[in-house]
Amino acid sequence: MVRVGSVIVRVTVLAGGIGGARFLGGVRAALADEADAEITAIVNTGDDVTMHGLRICPDLDSIMYTLGGASDTERGWGRQGETWRIKEQLALYGAEPTWFGLGDLDISTHLVRTRMLDAGYPLSDVTAALCDRWKPGVRLLPMTDDRCETHVVVDGENGNRRAIHFQEWWVRYRAEIPAYAFVQVGLESAQAAPGVLEAILEADVLLLAPSNPVVSIGTILAVPGVRDAIIQRTGPVIGLSPIIGGAPVRGMADSCLPVIGVEVSAQAVAAHYGARSAGGLLDGWLIHDTDTAAVDGIAVRAVPLYMTDDEASAAMVQAALDLAESTRA
Amino acid sequence: MVRVGSVIVRVTVLAGGIGGARFLGGVRAALADEADAEITAIVNTGDDVTMHGLRICPDLDSIMYTLGGASDTERGWGRQGETWRIKEQLALYGAEPTWFGLGDLDISTHLVRTRMLDAGYPLSDVTAALCDRWKPGVRLLPMTDDRCETHVVVDGENGNRRAIHFQEWWVRYRAEIPAYAFVQVGLESAQAAPGVLEAILEADVLLLAPSNPVVSIGTILAVPGVRDAIIQRTGPVIGLSPIIGGAPVRGMADSCLPVIGVEVSAQAVAAHYGARSAGGLLDGWLIHDTDTAAVDGIAVRAVPLYMTDDEASAAMVQAALDLAESTRA
Repeated sequence: MVRVGSVIVRVTVLAGGIGGARFLGGVRAALADEADAEITAIVNTGDDVTMHGLRICPDLDSIMYTLGGASDTERGWGRQGETWRIKEQLALYGAEPTWFGLGDLDISTHLVRTRMLDAGYPLSDVTAALCDRWKPGVRLLPMTDDRCETHVVVDGENGNRRAIHFQEWWVRYRAEIPAYAFVQVGLESAQAAPGVLEAILEADVLLLAPSNPVVSIGTILAVPGVRDAIIQRTGPVIGLSPIIGGAPVRGMADSCLPVIGVEVSAQAVAAHYGARSAGGLLDGWLIHDTDTAAVDGIAVRAVPLYMTDDEASAAMVQAALDLAESTRA
Repeated sequence: MVRVGSVIVRVTVLAGGIGGARFLGGVRAALADEADAEITAIVNTGDDVTMHGLRICPDLDSIMYTLGGASDTERGWGRQGETWRIKEQLALYGAEPTWFGLGDLDISTHLVRTRMLDAGYPLSDVTAALCDRWKPGVRLLPMTDDRCETHVVVDGENGNRRAIHFQEWWVRYRAEIPAYAFVQVGLESAQAAPGVLEAILEADVLLLAPSNPVVSIGTILAVPGVRDAIIQRTGPVIGLSPIIGGAPVRGMADSCLPVIGVEVSAQAVAAHYGARSAGGLLDGWLIHDTDTAAVDGIAVRAVPLYMTDDEASAAMVQAALDLAESTRA
């Protein structure tokens, strides 16, 4: 039974894709006995991309498939039983790009989404419609209904630099070519999707999932109004470190943090997020039990942070809720 | 060696989908030894439809796949090795329609086409790009680059009538609900695609494939300028009957001809097309060897008209070219 004080738990989570999905599985498991619990995930859409005319939302889909019990846990991304026949056919037609792992089952999601977007539905409505099938048990909100995409500034021809879509840097180049900056195209004029600011303001606990602090959490934080809502909210904000022993647990945060001048450590990420008492975001920070971190105004607690299964993730969530409770006291 | 008079053969064919595809296989086989032969197919696009945001051109694709050696000859439509995983997924999402046999491999074609059309390329360019892969050995021209779709007037609620897309009538209802009229939405203001009128005017022989005289050939003939070009051309025009013994060889022409008041017989279809000398279209008409037909001004010849394989189809084509030669003499 998880209660924060004596209030029915409304938990809101800022989340990226695969790590966010696993973490949300933990949140759902931790609150499984709490019939009135309301879990809201505010999901990064900066990784979104249009390929072959299909609108693809990798983070939303990773979470939806994972919580819907349809993700391939062995491969770590995409759907169970996925095949890539269409990808192969598109390559035979010479249709670019060929480097993106567009699965057949996955394409059906993109077809439904693209059609609804083309018909004028906002992404938040589309996401709700897709979730009608997957029943993730968590309210999934895209951070914004506006199109904004993360681009990466990399080396171009003749000593010039060029910007490529984040997916190209991440998937095609495995984050192995130097990045000089991340540019969120369209983000400045984006509006938080309906319900996002309310979910931040009204949640009993706000959690920052152990997702990439730069291109996942950082992008959500850059949506106009989000950072202010976090600062304004009265309840606690607890972050979980995606860095263990100086390396990201998954993903390539070690390629992203240095780009924004942040060291790859649990300590540095906490300092980057900052203490709420000092105009930052965090009341509490969970780090892995072999790490250390100390930032004025942030309550730090060390617990195991490997999300090996829902039980382990739920234990992390429980620790985060306990930490929230202690910061409230 | 097929020559018409002493001119290198340029053959243009008006064609629908599956029957047209087989017939064009015969044309290609008949002219295989003729290095300079130019075969042009002017293809019905009235069956085209947008489903799940994908632009689908059934007749163009049937021809492209068949001549590209990729069609499923046993099933009679679509691609060899086709699967329907995405169709199943779309149904699980509740995305309508669910009655159309949208194959996975086929979807890749529609994705490429839709993307190119959305980027502003005309359908004729898109078709040429797709044919770069399939190398059909025949120049495929959509009858028009303009969107026009055949609708069918059927019974609606409360004694009213309603119009449904041809595909819905054909595929969903197997042409088994009464049709009162065919309406080609957009056809009146459509323009023949680039090269279509020239291919009709300049061909040494113009062939009307044994395709549906109403919703395939009839639709092509209704494209502004096409009928006039046929009447104006100097070379012969030879049609092949799609009706054998009072029934269509394939497809459902028997459901379509009565709608426009034409009897289901080789004779009636010849009379419907009419003699060029009387303002109609035909110089010659090939019927199956068990049929009879007689129309003033049309040279009728009876030969086997079952397209069991390329050899049989090629023999039909050879008979058509011979008949063309005889009408010219």
